[in-house]
Amino acid sequence: MASKEQSKCAVIGASGYAGEELVRLLLAHPLAELVQVTSRQSVGKRLDQVFPRFAHQRKTLIFTDSDSESVLGNANIVFLALPHGVSAERAKAFLDGGVRVIDLSADFRLGNAETYREFYAKDHPAPDLLKRAVYGLPEVYHQKIADADLVACPGCYPTSILLPLLPLIREKLIDPTDITVASLSGVTGAGRKVEADYLFAECNESARPYGVPKHRHLSEIEQEVRRVTKTELVIQFVPHLVPMNRGIISTIFLRPAADVDEKETEAVYNDAYRTEPFVRLLGSRLPDTKNVIGTNFIDISWKLDPRTGRLIVMSAIDNLVKGTSGQAIQCLNLMCGYPETAGLL
Amino acid sequence: MASKEQSKCAVIGASGYAGEELVRLLLAHPLAELVQVTSRQSVGKRLDQVFPRFAHQRKTLIFTDSDSESVLGNANIVFLALPHGVSAERAKAFLDGGVRVIDLSADFRLGNAETYREFYAKDHPAPDLLKRAVYGLPEVYHQKIADADLVACPGCYPTSILLPLLPLIREKLIDPTDITVASLSGVTGAGRKVEADYLFAECNESARPYGVPKHRHLSEIEQEVRRVTKTELVIQFVPHLVPMNRGIISTIFLRPAADVDEKETEAVYNDAYRTEPFVRLLGSRLPDTKNVIGTNFIDISWKLDPRTGRLIVMSAIDNLVKGTSGQAIQCLNLMCGYPETAGLL
Amino acid sequence: MASKEQSKCAVIGASGYAGEELVRLLLAHPLAELVQVTSRQSVGKRLDQVFPRFAHQRKTLIFTDSDSESVLGNANIVFLALPHGVSAERAKAFLDGGVRVIDLSADFRLGNAETYREFYAKDHPAPDLLKRAVYGLPEVYHQKIADADLVACPGCYPTSILLPLLPLIREKLIDPTDITVASLSGVTGAGRKVEADYLFAECNESARPYGVPKHRHLSEIEQEVRRVTKTELVIQFVPHLVPMNRGIISTIFLRPAADVDEKETEAVYNDAYRTEPFVRLLGSRLPDTKNVIGTNFIDISWKLDPRTGRLIVMSAIDNLVKGTSGQAIQCLNLMCGYPETAGLL
Amino acid sequence: MASKEQSKCAVIGASGYAGEELVRLLLAHPLAELVQVTSRQSVGKRLDQVFPRFAHQRKTLIFTDSDSESVLGNANIVFLALPHGVSAERAKAFLDGGVRVIDLSADFRLGNAETYREFYAKDHPAPDLLKRAVYGLPEVYHQKIADADLVACPGCYPTSILLPLLPLIREKLIDPTDITVASLSGVTGAGRKVEADYLFAECNESARPYGVPKHRHLSEIEQEVRRVTKTELVIQFVPHLVPMNRGIISTIFLRPAADVDEKETEAVYNDAYRTEPFVRLLGSRLPDTKNVIGTNFIDISWKLDPRTGRLIVMSAIDNLVKGTSGQAIQCLNLMCGYPETAGLL
Repeated sequence: MASKEQSKCAVIGASGYAGEELVRLLLAHPLAELVQVTSRQSVGKRLDQVFPRFAHQRKTLIFTDSDSESVLGNANIVFLALPHGVSAERAKAFLDGGVRVIDLSADFRLGNAETYREFYAKDHPAPDLLKRAVYGLPEVYHQKIADADLVACPGCYPTSILLPLLPLIREKLIDPTDITVASLSGVTGAGRKVEADYLFAECNESARPYGVPKHRHLSEIEQEVRRVTKTELVIQFVPHLVPMNRGIISTIFLRPAADVDEKETEAVYNDAYRTEPFVRLLGSRLPDTKNVIGTNFIDISWKLDPRTGRLIVMSAIDNLVKGTSGQAIQCLNLMCGYPETAGLL
Repeated sequence: MASKEQSKCAVIGASGYAGEELVRLLLAHPLAELVQVTSRQSVGKRLDQVFPRFAHQRKTLIFTDSDSESVLGNANIVFLALPHGVSAERAKAFLDGGVRVIDLSADFRLGNAETYREFYAKDHPAPDLLKRAVYGLPEVYHQKIADADLVACPGCYPTSILLPLLPLIREKLIDPTDITVASLSGVTGAGRKVEADYLFAECNESARPYGVPKHRHLSEIEQEVRRVTKTELVIQFVPHLVPMNRGIISTIFLRPAADVDEKETEAVYNDAYRTEPFVRLLGSRLPDTKNVIGTNFIDISWKLDPRTGRLIVMSAIDNLVKGTSGQAIQCLNLMCGYPETAGLL
Repeated sequence: MASKEQSKCAVIGASGYAGEELVRLLLAHPLAELVQVTSRQSVGKRLDQVFPRFAHQRKTLIFTDSDSESVLGNANIVFLALPHGVSAERAKAFLDGGVRVIDLSADFRLGNAETYREFYAKDHPAPDLLKRAVYGLPEVYHQKIADADLVACPGCYPTSILLPLLPLIREKLIDPTDITVASLSGVTGAGRKVEADYLFAECNESARPYGVPKHRHLSEIEQEVRRVTKTELVIQFVPHLVPMNRGIISTIFLRPAADVDEKETEAVYNDAYRTEPFVRLLGSRLPDTKNVIGTNFIDISWKLDPRTGRLIVMSAIDNLVKGTSGQAIQCLNLMCGYPETAGLL
Repeated sequence: MASKEQSKCAVIGASGYAGEELVRLLLAHPLAELVQVTSRQSVGKRLDQVFPRFAHQRKTLIFTDSDSESVLGNANIVFLALPHGVSAERAKAFLDGGVRVIDLSADFRLGNAETYREFYAKDHPAPDLLKRAVYGLPEVYHQKIADADLVACPGCYPTSILLPLLPLIREKLIDPTDITVASLSGVTGAGRKVEADYLFAECNESARPYGVPKHRHLSEIEQEVRRVTKTELVIQFVPHLVPMNRGIISTIFLRPAADVDEKETEAVYNDAYRTEPFVRLLGSRLPDTKNVIGTNFIDISWKLDPRTGRLIVMSAIDNLVKGTSGQAIQCLNLMCGYPETAGLL
């Protein structure tokens, strides 16, 4: 389905952090063209009025309303940067109009409408589309994404957890029923929510766990792990909010199979990711969010703790790039037959 | 041994963050008097030249060298805010001079010189003093601290982990062999180390694990847990550095005994801490470092995860107050027969 | 009017940053008692539910509505921490009920209803009260505050600017018609406003001027300068928002009279402030907000620039303490005949 | 002198923040090739060992010592990212070897060795080279830079001040003898100096003026202004350090000539900068460092204050990009005949 002609892209719901980052990446993309931005609250405003950082753009984009008619004539790819629940309502019109959809919400990540109801506390608005959607983790679903017309980009935490986890599970290096994850995220992870909890003085000089014990992202993490193990299992996950703009650290505590050591772990990771352009294997050097900020890289580290016998795997990503919009561009590149790194390196 | 007369206190090695915080607390203490501050690098300087925040002090303290002779005549209590290894070398002269010692380093926390060698990679400089030292966790060793002449103040991470952990272990609510801890700390936790790793631009917009897998604080955490269980065990612990000045969050993953629920957990905590002035039991409300900054409180929260069956316990402290210097003042209060909260509320 | 009996204080509109800081200071005050907190949005909630940092308070305060009847029976002092315009509407009922009022809004700072209309773009709701109000800058209006029943606490920028400025103007050391001020403020200066501009990720890694060229605080700065000079004059003032919770730096560029040097400047400051408990004169040592955070001090520095002939005066305060709530407590102390530093050192 | 062949670039002293940013920009440059990095303290280390953010580079660069012989064979352009004083000592050997030099230190910014001695408190190590050097402000010295073999990149503050200032002075819109500047800078502006003043906990929650009253950058600001006015003059300048990694705000208070208004100001700026790719004229919209971080743009705003009659001009840059390394690349582009924006947009 891929073709190398220039794609014409629209970003629906472009006024949040994910939307802004998509705009940044698309404006700099050598092969894709950003032709439309929509946002209910910003209709009629110029792009640089909403995002002054884009003040140098010679081309003037004006925010339109997100009705699909106005988009269908312009774009052949739409990115949905809409709230959960809204994406699913809007996707069908775009698909029916022959436009391929890259969704950044959680709406199409779960293959199962019941799990959606359990974790998102409402009925799925378009359950018939779930089968059609591909989970947009390029390092796992490379070819499926290339062929898809509906891609569900993973959540930021799931990206940071699944990429280090899946090769170890696939190669049976660890016990998939004993997985504990502590993650740390910068504040943009909450989106541009105008709520007191996310005011500067409420987040600065503050660190706090949240979403305990059943954060919504668990649903997709468990789904993807189960797709490998073919068994039921649950994962322990506690995220924390820390005072920085961007970045996620995930520290994953694992029970390795007998005799698994750091060398074997390294071999498995090398096999899985040696040729992946956005995975950097640090070995025993520990990750730091500042090394990935603004990039689409995931840094992965591992250490065996000889005292406890646990394998500790750690990763770092930029939640807005590899965790959201950069990964969406990576999916775009696959879908359009572009080099996977186009606009991302 | 306690007496209610005013104590005359000296802070040895007062130029670091712990020393500065001790000075702040002692200057405001209603019953203790700060009579001397020492620091090799600041000899001859006025207190406010080294710490401009104390510029209003009418009383002029001048930094002296840390030789014990000059201190012995002035003070009847000394706080050692010296690097590990140095404290142990200095403590004896003070004790021999009849002065009670509150040590903030790690030198007297471990009852066992071998464990010290294992974790601190050198021979203990004063192993004969180890038996004499009391571990300065007031909520556990209240009376022993009152009677001690050598108190070893716990590390900041151990304080944040042991206080939530010990009641559950004592009452056998959890399996002590399956304990996993992820902690987050502000940058003052590293001390006032003039190293590139702690420069502003290296820590700001950065989150990173460190000390994996065998952080030194594990030695005292395990020692205190083993004192309850009387069995060998190891604990899993990964600390992270996050961009804030102060504060520690510890998130502790536990395997509860059969039928333990949140209510029983609450009952155990209430029994242990109801009358403790510095322990605040939040129940299922999650902790946030910003609620404890500048205070000697520890906030403790807990949730049972019905999906994994794990009990998740979380705590927040100010690493420089309850985690270091405030707890040292709390010990001082016990040692001198003052109200436990004197100078701390 | 002052009496040394314990005052019973209510904080009206206690849910903002100034209100929270007042609550903190009043709970720790040795002579004043906090008897009531009100907040329309928090009616019925316990103090610690709204402000978890106060979770240790044994005494349970429940937020009530701000109707004056319920307050009049309880309190003999009310602090109004209400938005501009609202304070003026509420003050009369309290005053008529025999309660003394300390207002933290801008409503009673200006002696002139026309200037209020010019800078606040609405008619003053209670112009008859303006004459009754005393400008609550204790270092200037010590006795008037002691006798007042309506005190208008100065704004945070005016506090940081007027205290360094007024002695120089009074002693004619500088030209009052050539004053230029650049100020830097932490984000709590904007109040707990739930607006996108004050979200963490909009303020972090951001510095920006705002309120150019006619910030509202100019009105009270100019009023107080004119009260000394008895002449018309305007002042140049540009504030900047910088990514920290608290703190203000004001850098003031002045044209000194002939032959004025640093020594004479120092002498004038010494005369003005030597006995003031909250003014710290640093001389040529430059100020830093971190030295005043959490305190009621103002640090003042000065340098003569021999190249330009300008006198550069710089100050640092904590905007929520000396800039707002601490200064309000300082006024309370004067009004009640308490030691001026009660509850503040 | 310019030729469009690919340049081979070396970065001498690549281990500081400016050097790291140069490396980042050169690695992504479409026409220049980074062939060598040197650093005394990192000799023998791989680039990604010193800067983990470059871990994905396939090409392995190893730090060498900075002796010119090893560089001369490899590179035809060298960037000197060395301390003041050291650059001047090293430049001659490179120039004599036929290599063009782009110096990021202050050593060649001043045309006059006496002014250098006055501001840098030492004799200039290579005064004979001063005449040969071109001040690397591309918007002013476009053609001279293109032809130069020794370019002295401006300081970060001077860049942020001169670009808004010079057109107004050239067109006589303002009085050049009455210029007052307050600037705010992120902490990387101090370089990667391992000193206590720049530790995280000393800068976080801190704002402070410094370098009062005679910051070294004044020398080049005044030099460039005098080149226009042909008269002696001094400028008032106070920089402040604020807790962010990157970014400078300069707020400039000016005395406009009679009848100058915002419209005329705009016309002058449009004439000066309409075609400049890195100058964004915001008009009365105020600048914010977050809109320029990571970019080579300077944002310029202006407001006339009708009360004081002053013209207030404000600018924002990223101190490490337009303020240092990005501007150096812009110079490289001019010197090599590349598009001015190559590698920078």
